[in-house]
Amino acid sequence: MKKILNKVENVVAEMLDGIVYSNNKVYKVDGYNVIARKESKDKVVLISGGGSGHEPAHAGFVGYGMLDAAVAGEVFTSPAVDQVYGAIEAVDKGKGVLLVIKNYTGDVMNFEMAAEMANANGSNVKSVIVNDDIAVEDSLYTAGRRGVAGTVFVHKIAGSAAEDGKSLDEVVALAEKVVANTKTLGMSLGGATVPASGKKSFELAEDEIEMGLGIHGEPGTHKEKLNTAHEHVKYMLDLLLKESNIKDEKVAVLVNGLGSTTLMELYIVNKEVNDQLKLKGVKVHKSLVGNYMTSLEMPGFSITLLKLDDEMEKYLDYKIESTLF
Amino acid sequence: MKKILNKVENVVAEMLDGIVYSNNKVYKVDGYNVIARKESKDKVVLISGGGSGHEPAHAGFVGYGMLDAAVAGEVFTSPAVDQVYGAIEAVDKGKGVLLVIKNYTGDVMNFEMAAEMANANGSNVKSVIVNDDIAVEDSLYTAGRRGVAGTVFVHKIAGSAAEDGKSLDEVVALAEKVVANTKTLGMSLGGATVPASGKKSFELAEDEIEMGLGIHGEPGTHKEKLNTAHEHVKYMLDLLLKESNIKDEKVAVLVNGLGSTTLMELYIVNKEVNDQLKLKGVKVHKSLVGNYMTSLEMPGFSITLLKLDDEMEKYLDYKIESTLF
Repeated sequence: MKKILNKVENVVAEMLDGIVYSNNKVYKVDGYNVIARKESKDKVVLISGGGSGHEPAHAGFVGYGMLDAAVAGEVFTSPAVDQVYGAIEAVDKGKGVLLVIKNYTGDVMNFEMAAEMANANGSNVKSVIVNDDIAVEDSLYTAGRRGVAGTVFVHKIAGSAAEDGKSLDEVVALAEKVVANTKTLGMSLGGATVPASGKKSFELAEDEIEMGLGIHGEPGTHKEKLNTAHEHVKYMLDLLLKESNIKDEKVAVLVNGLGSTTLMELYIVNKEVNDQLKLKGVKVHKSLVGNYMTSLEMPGFSITLLKLDDEMEKYLDYKIESTLF
Repeated sequence: MKKILNKVENVVAEMLDGIVYSNNKVYKVDGYNVIARKESKDKVVLISGGGSGHEPAHAGFVGYGMLDAAVAGEVFTSPAVDQVYGAIEAVDKGKGVLLVIKNYTGDVMNFEMAAEMANANGSNVKSVIVNDDIAVEDSLYTAGRRGVAGTVFVHKIAGSAAEDGKSLDEVVALAEKVVANTKTLGMSLGGATVPASGKKSFELAEDEIEMGLGIHGEPGTHKEKLNTAHEHVKYMLDLLLKESNIKDEKVAVLVNGLGSTTLMELYIVNKEVNDQLKLKGVKVHKSLVGNYMTSLEMPGFSITLLKLDDEMEKYLDYKIESTLF
């Protein structure tokens, strides 16, 4: 395994230290693998998280107008119940807590058990489960559809509504609306190496891609020959638009890199997505391009379409702070 | 070659279209491979650029408090003189123009020739040459030291001073101060594939890294066995601190990913950099971590130290807009 690290068993703890050194507005909650905001007004708080290996998700989205805390499990492994509970205790301001959970069996179980414990202790915790991946109905770690890159739209829109002073019920309703209108499909060009295993999760032939692959390397729908950006995007948009039931609404696009695909390629994909949507008469309000929800160093990308209404558009555009400098 | 693209000869043009679709505050200058800001007040303007393949550098840094335009050459190839001249014409507001040039023979020649042409036509163009890479004195495409990731500190600090209304002479002096105080060293774990060649630029053994490699795959100082993050960072910081002549100044750190190295690893490197600097009594004002100046999908990273004074610190922290959402 060719990775820059110290001990395999310490990757998550050392990563969290490195995140705190890189962002003076967050801290690591003592005794927990939780990154939380230092300063925040009294408001509904948002917590997300899951297995590590998807960086910048989720700790990279802790900040003004987004998350209040992110819980980091081991690589590709759900965080334990006590870790999620520790995050709730650390950031709950008494105005309500929303847990944003990607739909994987372990995550759903552990986040919801932590919510029950916190509610029994006087908190007001609700949760929303993100299941944006249209590739497969059930999967290796999932009953129902998987939660993937579209999760960051939930972080942003629900997080900005909370920052704007909305109540827990309003934030939950908005988060559920984002989930209902967010559809993602990904394709992979190869595997990635989980540090603890030291070996690539799977191999594809030099001219082969896998459509619909999950962000932990879970099987997709089929393998096919590597084709042009134009043809792959066409196939993916056809499926996404069919699922999205778009009439005259505007959409937001996320072209998400899975790890080692260059920004150059992601921008070429974004050109295709926008050109092709324009030809179909679909209006794009905003296109995000970059590595938002990775699968370690997996080569590949996903396309997310979010069908917008005015409320979602307002909070998608709501001001946040720069993370660049 | 396993990349998501259409025609190899169109990668730069299609990438630029994709960038414009992703950022409604920039446009592509008609007839030129130049990305420029739509709106900007009368002020000194900054232009940078160079070969493509280093994304987000440089078009990703076009925006409030950073660059006014970025010129994109073919992959790893300097933009032609007329392209740079087109950028100057597009954004010059009559208050002066600063060209930020990475030190490669082709870039220096073409940018400076464009500056001469523009000055002959009544513009006031000055340039600063960035040569932050301490690995080697001369290199494949360079007389003197190469310009690498530290260039983004020049974009940010000089760009923010220009936004703050400083004169061309003041912005030039500040940019030169940043260059004089910025030192970078990188290491690579393997090659990358330029689309036009279709083949990896070089190979390293499974347990081998190259120290001091350039962002176009130019040779470094030596190959060695892959070691821990701790040991590699220790070696690199020793050289960087020796070059930086730091006494009691604060520093800014940039841990820059070269392409396919995971954020998890970059954060582990950042933890090592901060832990080790703390032990040496060096105070870190700010650490940036991420892919700022890549070499396509090359695995590896660089560490940049910028020795700060109050003026540089002020403009490093100067407000810019978020590029995340």
